[in-house]
Amino acid sequence: MTYFTDFEKIQFEGKASKNPYAFKHYNPSEVVFGKTMEEHLRFAVAYWHTFNANGTDPFGAGTMVRSWDKYDGLDRSKARVEANFEFMEKMNIPYYCFHDVDIAPEGATLQEFYKNLDVIVAMLKDYQKSTGKKLLWNTANNFTNPRYVHGAATAANIDAYAYAAAQVKKGLEIGKELGGENYVFWGGREGYESLINTDMKLEQDNLARFYHMAVDYAKEIGFDAQFLIEPKPKEPTSHQYDFDAATTISFLKTYGLENHFKLNLEANHATLAGHTFEHEIRVAAINGMLGSLDANQGNMLLGWDTDEFPTDLYATTLTMYEVLKAGGLGRGGVNFDAKVRRTSFEMSDLALGHIAGMDSFAWGLKAAAKLIEEKVFDSVIEEKYATFKEGLGADVVAGKATLKDLEAYALTNPVARNKSGRIENLRLRLSEVIFSV
Amino acid sequence: MTYFTDFEKIQFEGKASKNPYAFKHYNPSEVVFGKTMEEHLRFAVAYWHTFNANGTDPFGAGTMVRSWDKYDGLDRSKARVEANFEFMEKMNIPYYCFHDVDIAPEGATLQEFYKNLDVIVAMLKDYQKSTGKKLLWNTANNFTNPRYVHGAATAANIDAYAYAAAQVKKGLEIGKELGGENYVFWGGREGYESLINTDMKLEQDNLARFYHMAVDYAKEIGFDAQFLIEPKPKEPTSHQYDFDAATTISFLKTYGLENHFKLNLEANHATLAGHTFEHEIRVAAINGMLGSLDANQGNMLLGWDTDEFPTDLYATTLTMYEVLKAGGLGRGGVNFDAKVRRTSFEMSDLALGHIAGMDSFAWGLKAAAKLIEEKVFDSVIEEKYATFKEGLGADVVAGKATLKDLEAYALTNPVARNKSGRIENLRLRLSEVIFSV
Amino acid sequence: MTYFTDFEKIQFEGKASKNPYAFKHYNPSEVVFGKTMEEHLRFAVAYWHTFNANGTDPFGAGTMVRSWDKYDGLDRSKARVEANFEFMEKMNIPYYCFHDVDIAPEGATLQEFYKNLDVIVAMLKDYQKSTGKKLLWNTANNFTNPRYVHGAATAANIDAYAYAAAQVKKGLEIGKELGGENYVFWGGREGYESLINTDMKLEQDNLARFYHMAVDYAKEIGFDAQFLIEPKPKEPTSHQYDFDAATTISFLKTYGLENHFKLNLEANHATLAGHTFEHEIRVAAINGMLGSLDANQGNMLLGWDTDEFPTDLYATTLTMYEVLKAGGLGRGGVNFDAKVRRTSFEMSDLALGHIAGMDSFAWGLKAAAKLIEEKVFDSVIEEKYATFKEGLGADVVAGKATLKDLEAYALTNPVARNKSGRIENLRLRLSEVIFSV
Amino acid sequence: MTYFTDFEKIQFEGKASKNPYAFKHYNPSEVVFGKTMEEHLRFAVAYWHTFNANGTDPFGAGTMVRSWDKYDGLDRSKARVEANFEFMEKMNIPYYCFHDVDIAPEGATLQEFYKNLDVIVAMLKDYQKSTGKKLLWNTANNFTNPRYVHGAATAANIDAYAYAAAQVKKGLEIGKELGGENYVFWGGREGYESLINTDMKLEQDNLARFYHMAVDYAKEIGFDAQFLIEPKPKEPTSHQYDFDAATTISFLKTYGLENHFKLNLEANHATLAGHTFEHEIRVAAINGMLGSLDANQGNMLLGWDTDEFPTDLYATTLTMYEVLKAGGLGRGGVNFDAKVRRTSFEMSDLALGHIAGMDSFAWGLKAAAKLIEEKVFDSVIEEKYATFKEGLGADVVAGKATLKDLEAYALTNPVARNKSGRIENLRLRLSEVIFSV
Repeated sequence: MTYFTDFEKIQFEGKASKNPYAFKHYNPSEVVFGKTMEEHLRFAVAYWHTFNANGTDPFGAGTMVRSWDKYDGLDRSKARVEANFEFMEKMNIPYYCFHDVDIAPEGATLQEFYKNLDVIVAMLKDYQKSTGKKLLWNTANNFTNPRYVHGAATAANIDAYAYAAAQVKKGLEIGKELGGENYVFWGGREGYESLINTDMKLEQDNLARFYHMAVDYAKEIGFDAQFLIEPKPKEPTSHQYDFDAATTISFLKTYGLENHFKLNLEANHATLAGHTFEHEIRVAAINGMLGSLDANQGNMLLGWDTDEFPTDLYATTLTMYEVLKAGGLGRGGVNFDAKVRRTSFEMSDLALGHIAGMDSFAWGLKAAAKLIEEKVFDSVIEEKYATFKEGLGADVVAGKATLKDLEAYALTNPVARNKSGRIENLRLRLSEVIFSV
Repeated sequence: MTYFTDFEKIQFEGKASKNPYAFKHYNPSEVVFGKTMEEHLRFAVAYWHTFNANGTDPFGAGTMVRSWDKYDGLDRSKARVEANFEFMEKMNIPYYCFHDVDIAPEGATLQEFYKNLDVIVAMLKDYQKSTGKKLLWNTANNFTNPRYVHGAATAANIDAYAYAAAQVKKGLEIGKELGGENYVFWGGREGYESLINTDMKLEQDNLARFYHMAVDYAKEIGFDAQFLIEPKPKEPTSHQYDFDAATTISFLKTYGLENHFKLNLEANHATLAGHTFEHEIRVAAINGMLGSLDANQGNMLLGWDTDEFPTDLYATTLTMYEVLKAGGLGRGGVNFDAKVRRTSFEMSDLALGHIAGMDSFAWGLKAAAKLIEEKVFDSVIEEKYATFKEGLGADVVAGKATLKDLEAYALTNPVARNKSGRIENLRLRLSEVIFSV
Repeated sequence: MTYFTDFEKIQFEGKASKNPYAFKHYNPSEVVFGKTMEEHLRFAVAYWHTFNANGTDPFGAGTMVRSWDKYDGLDRSKARVEANFEFMEKMNIPYYCFHDVDIAPEGATLQEFYKNLDVIVAMLKDYQKSTGKKLLWNTANNFTNPRYVHGAATAANIDAYAYAAAQVKKGLEIGKELGGENYVFWGGREGYESLINTDMKLEQDNLARFYHMAVDYAKEIGFDAQFLIEPKPKEPTSHQYDFDAATTISFLKTYGLENHFKLNLEANHATLAGHTFEHEIRVAAINGMLGSLDANQGNMLLGWDTDEFPTDLYATTLTMYEVLKAGGLGRGGVNFDAKVRRTSFEMSDLALGHIAGMDSFAWGLKAAAKLIEEKVFDSVIEEKYATFKEGLGADVVAGKATLKDLEAYALTNPVARNKSGRIENLRLRLSEVIFSV
Repeated sequence: MTYFTDFEKIQFEGKASKNPYAFKHYNPSEVVFGKTMEEHLRFAVAYWHTFNANGTDPFGAGTMVRSWDKYDGLDRSKARVEANFEFMEKMNIPYYCFHDVDIAPEGATLQEFYKNLDVIVAMLKDYQKSTGKKLLWNTANNFTNPRYVHGAATAANIDAYAYAAAQVKKGLEIGKELGGENYVFWGGREGYESLINTDMKLEQDNLARFYHMAVDYAKEIGFDAQFLIEPKPKEPTSHQYDFDAATTISFLKTYGLENHFKLNLEANHATLAGHTFEHEIRVAAINGMLGSLDANQGNMLLGWDTDEFPTDLYATTLTMYEVLKAGGLGRGGVNFDAKVRRTSFEMSDLALGHIAGMDSFAWGLKAAAKLIEEKVFDSVIEEKYATFKEGLGADVVAGKATLKDLEAYALTNPVARNKSGRIENLRLRLSEVIFSV
């Protein structure tokens, strides 16, 4: 059957088009900065927001009208699989991502959950084969079930910890079965509500042990996906251990895990942590930790994760600027961890939301390429730091200077040759470039 | 001469006293949890807030009435030295801390600055000797002078970088001369306003080189103070590299500096970064990085550093709880990086502000000791994590479990034995304990 | 049957008690500042948090263990009624509050909802009669149902608007039937997600018309409860019209409603709006708009409504200080709009949470009374503003001064006789008073 | 002499220009939506940021290189006047705004201040006459001087209150002399640091009396400028009485001042209060209170007023959208209350900053006009609220419906005809429209 009846396959029609069900910027085969848009962006559908979410919020019931809701139980899960591949096809999106509980009912026991997962995974595999669509990453939902009330890999008791481990073990097997290119860990309950009843050291040690076991098991079964940790500072817990990129890198280095993991960065998580998204990407990139992106945007006046579709071109441009500068996303991609607003409850909004996000990212990609090609920022930066290319500056960079050398220089060269950073002009230039591509 | 005429030496008079110029809780020689209060708390006066600040804010001129302001230039610097030791004596505070520019005029040249510093350092040394007061730490102010407009150890040019290095070199020599127990780095300009004109990688590399040079020079001159970095997430820059404890630890590990530095943590910096102060202390402690404390408190409804005197007993109690749990402050101390409000402009407010902070910390110390002795939190924690003490839980902690082991367990033990975290009751207990000491 | 089996009626045992199921401060018949604690505090149970909430959060399923969950449908509603009165009795709480949907199933039609409500309301009335417990206020839940996706009294279409009106009409009838002392309006969906698709003027006009109709109908049926509006700045919508006390007062004055409404103020809503709770109470009080209080506390590091039980004694003391200064709560009360944490999922936590809140408020009441009696703040304030009691200052206050008079004075009296505000000392005094009662 | 030597008069060169010292969008005589750009935008230079600010921040000394700094005292003031008119001419800006202390030295006495002001005001008047430039508004700086430590129109003593009144009296006379079109009140110290030592009621009463006196005096001298109050929620005080538009409107209505004042709204103040700028403009507009705009932008990750030049086209477009919808700015204008960053310390940055702001506003104006002309938002809004145009919906709007009518309707029309709000699509459309102008 057909689940999405309001639109056919979305085509690229160019900027002049007035058709809301068309791409004006995303042209998959268009070459930008040496690669096609499709190769750069590697878009993915987030299964949970698109096929599971129903529009509930802490003060409201579900609003979403979904054509698969006429089915129940495993049948609904199967309908979602069909809808997923129909949607990917119509949207021209090559990848998808899911949590285990998104695709199959948990059932009454772990055994039953496994059985349901096996049914659906087989179906996903068939669809992947017949459509050519691929799995960007999967993960285990170790935060919704009440058993994880005190954490999962940082659980307060062995029972929840073991259950979480079983879900991850199964997840790794599913990832291997479906050829997943990455496997993600997001620690929704790996944090605390208050330190006064929390043993942070034990919890972090156990979390590291959990990761080591996952690394070992993936190796054992020959699953060579890139492992990713997704930082978030808070929500649902008051404080999450993977607060941001730097915190997660610190954790990985402390426990000898830094060669086994990269980061899955999310825009709205960055801003909740007090950073821009581009900051988080830069931190990951210069530490060799850039893995994949969860694309969305937050509302800067709100203090919770709103996961809106990314439509701010300043943000998409600066995001893609960092990605291009870092050499691209590698095995990662741009996953729309974004939900249509509770007020955008019609099926067609799913298409319009993704079109908004995809066009905004394609637009940002083109603008980013132009910023680099025209050296809009680089020309200022090169001039700004020029004194580190020669003389004592070069000695510093080469690690050959001492405090004594520097003092001797300062005593005879007391005036600093600073130049204006030209922020105001660069910001206007940024607008001009974005709106010229 | 006498600079503080409104009060004599502040004495401990106990809780029943109505005298505002007396301690009701800080009794230096009282033994709590195995040490005297003086040994636990190691209070320090912050020179800048107490002797240099004049009450300006971004919209207002100075308001402070200060008896040393009748002097000018180096004479004012000398008067401040005298006032400092008079104040420490009257307040019964054993330590003080300063930036280079706090104690002496910068003069027109670096040479002149050195000369001024030498005069004052000699004077400080004499006073230390005659009074027994000590230097907790000194540091270089590498953020106020316009030459640091683009950073100091992350400067955009070698001139500013070299000047900053000269200040630090001199600072290390001063620290050695005065027997400073620690030496602090706070990177007020080591960050950025915008990534679009910033080479973060070069700046961080240069920052690490700067630290290595400082470590080398201290070794060369035989200055064995503990080196401390003070994290702050923002202000004055939009984003500072030493964002918080975890970020700083990540940086230190990346550049092989983790054995040479510990952290100087500040309460208001913690909250600006989205953390409680106790979180930052815990993170430092479990990473072996707890160095010293800058004691103050922020206004949680404001988005800038207010540096208020610490008077919230919940905060001082939980701070001292973490300190006691971590085994104490070692060579660090409790430095009042706190300023009397612009509206508290009288000389006597300096005493009243310090009394408020000292009594609140002493009170918090007593409450923290009782919380530990009565196992108020520990009894809940021990029960909460009990399953990791035996069986499979113990195997996990010992690093002997695998995902397969855990799955096998989960398949046969699906119900998690979670217990209430009892937060509401613990919070009331916390109030009750604070009350009872 | 008995729903709460872990504890018997909570008794006042005084500060020395170690019994967690006892009051150490709340002694209902104790006279403080001229009235009994019971008369001052007028505590109320919030039906929704205590009997309906199950511990879900945006990332997690319910965790709460509740003895009435073995029943379904209307039977569960009846069990909740029984549990409510048992709980009120055991906790010694005289009032309760509810939304219509809390007490009865919505059913398939409005008619069915009415029928269910009638059954339960009759039961509540009987229980009130037999126990002496009373209704502090009721309200209509006009935000959860998907029909209110675009608002209720600010709905985008007449259908939802009319439905909301019907719920309020029924609510007024129920309030009258149960002798409710107040009737509350909280506009959970009365706001917007984005201005770009919102007609704010029409929505606010319609909201005012809605309120006028409610006023008229209450008069028509002879229901003389105090009407209350509860401000909140955001959540669930991005921006709510009743942002804070001042905004709501502005709205009421604009539409000629100021004589028909007062405010129901909530602590966590205040802080989300950037205010302290005491600020909101002061604003209401000096505008003659103080109605009732929703007692809870937020986590200042989080950007959403956490509705925690109030345990911060600084907050409860300053809250009760404002209440006493305003002459008391009149027909209002202290309603615990607070939920036990998702991790406090046992039945006994409901008692422990309420005990924490009640003792913290009783403690705050005693401290507030002492602050007033000892003129701790007032003595500073009286001195600070003394110049407005005489001469030109008195003329200003009497409305007799002009700019010319003031200029003439300024030209001859240029020096302002300001005095220190003594904040640091007052804050320590506050701690001392709280911990002395 | 010439103060700005790096650029000549800035010309409109159109979008294709690569000249940084040219307008690409601001074409003063271009007609948009029925008026020229110049008539719509009424740009003004903020004297303080452009001619007085030196780049200090709470942690740093001034960095700005300014050609008038070679002069001292009143000579420097005169040089600033010359620079101001040269700058306005070169930037093609018709208006300017100032505080009294911006234009003349305060001197040692009020008498001396008056004398200095008279000298400069005469000079300004001459320059206005010879250049045709005009005064958008002036105001009194009643916040910087230490005498205002406890407030000015809310001072704690009559001395400061009287001095503030004298400054305002003189300001009104200056406004009249210079033909100022508006007169502004910004209450930088009209608020509190803590309620515990503040008599809010007395302070607000005195503030209202102050405003009434100003209204009376302006009438007395025949100064018919529009009076404006500028809301800001905090900074420098912890809480300011004119928190936001709604709060200020509430205050004005409470004290019978609503017919004498409108609002001067500032973008960065809006966001500090938790609102978008467009929200504040809408609130003012629908209350008939829209006066003038202070154009700038904040950094949403920072908690203080950064006053950056406005370059975000989404913000400038939505700002001008509200302005056009409200029927324009009337006697108000677009004042650049914006400062070049501390790192943009060269004279040329003043031009580049203003060009960035002016082009961004002109661009936003064009985009806003197109949004209205193409009914991009309006078509969705009209459909969304259509049911209030007929039947019972129309009765509600006409004030003819009752709760009974609505209940009767709800009982027979239970299904709400809600439609998707289409936010995602509208946001992409917004980008497309901005791009296309």
